[in-house]
Amino acid sequence: MSMIDELLRNNEQFTAGFDHAELDASPARQVVLVTCMDARIDPAAALGLTPGDAHVLRNAGGLVTDDVVRSLAISQHALGTREIMVVQHTQCGMHGLDENALALKIGAAKGHPPNANVRFGAFTDLDTSVRASVARLRATDLLLHQDRIRGFVYEVETGRLREVS
Amino acid sequence: MSMIDELLRNNEQFTAGFDHAELDASPARQVVLVTCMDARIDPAAALGLTPGDAHVLRNAGGLVTDDVVRSLAISQHALGTREIMVVQHTQCGMHGLDENALALKIGAAKGHPPNANVRFGAFTDLDTSVRASVARLRATDLLLHQDRIRGFVYEVETGRLREVS
Repeated sequence: MSMIDELLRNNEQFTAGFDHAELDASPARQVVLVTCMDARIDPAAALGLTPGDAHVLRNAGGLVTDDVVRSLAISQHALGTREIMVVQHTQCGMHGLDENALALKIGAAKGHPPNANVRFGAFTDLDTSVRASVARLRATDLLLHQDRIRGFVYEVETGRLREVS
Repeated sequence: MSMIDELLRNNEQFTAGFDHAELDASPARQVVLVTCMDARIDPAAALGLTPGDAHVLRNAGGLVTDDVVRSLAISQHALGTREIMVVQHTQCGMHGLDENALALKIGAAKGHPPNANVRFGAFTDLDTSVRASVARLRATDLLLHQDRIRGFVYEVETGRLREVS
């Protein structure tokens, strides 16, 4: 049986106790979290969020990419959010990742190399990466509110957020 | 006081009870969830996930974008995941969004129109959008495992997942 089938059984239990059908699409706390896909991060638990509170954007690294800017533009202009937290983390797979080695590995698995333009988002210094992502958000012309954008490192060893930028 | 400061206080409480310092970066359940940033969706609750279980990717719509493919390539080739769930949802802000009206709104707020190449990812039919995202993943040459990619609609009214593709 696939793992997805197991998660669907969990979802059946969840629906039996479902109690928040009436929430609004606009986040009640008017805040967006941008963070990594990492399995060790549970945004709701780490920040005390309940359903309806906040938009959550996640990708490999918690990097500010074109897709994150697109999503934030919709979040602010169409759904009323005003603050943004960028949260990258210790022990991230993107930290020190060898992009060329990964491309070679994919090429070996698939029988041909990936498109040479593909970039995976590796970085060499965590705090510098957070600052670069925050700087991009402060500079983009697609956002409405740029005075409350803050960058953090989440320590997977302690659960603590450390402010960087 | 900003909302972010309030969330940081919640994080202090979280760290006091923190009990999973030793988790591995590779997801224990070898599964990735791709879903929307929507504030009403709590992936951990809806699927019965605990820290360390699964990668979670989120953007506006739960659409498969370049950034999602990038993240999934890392997830599969570097961190050992094998299955992918794409979960879009009812009452999504991207469903029926008028892209031109949004561009005009941003232009009015910022004093100049956004780059004409910006696309926000609006869609007109939910099931069709899920199928298109799943099809893109089944066709990309950047993934290692493409036999267990499944598409769903999450009903924000009931919490239930309905399989589409």
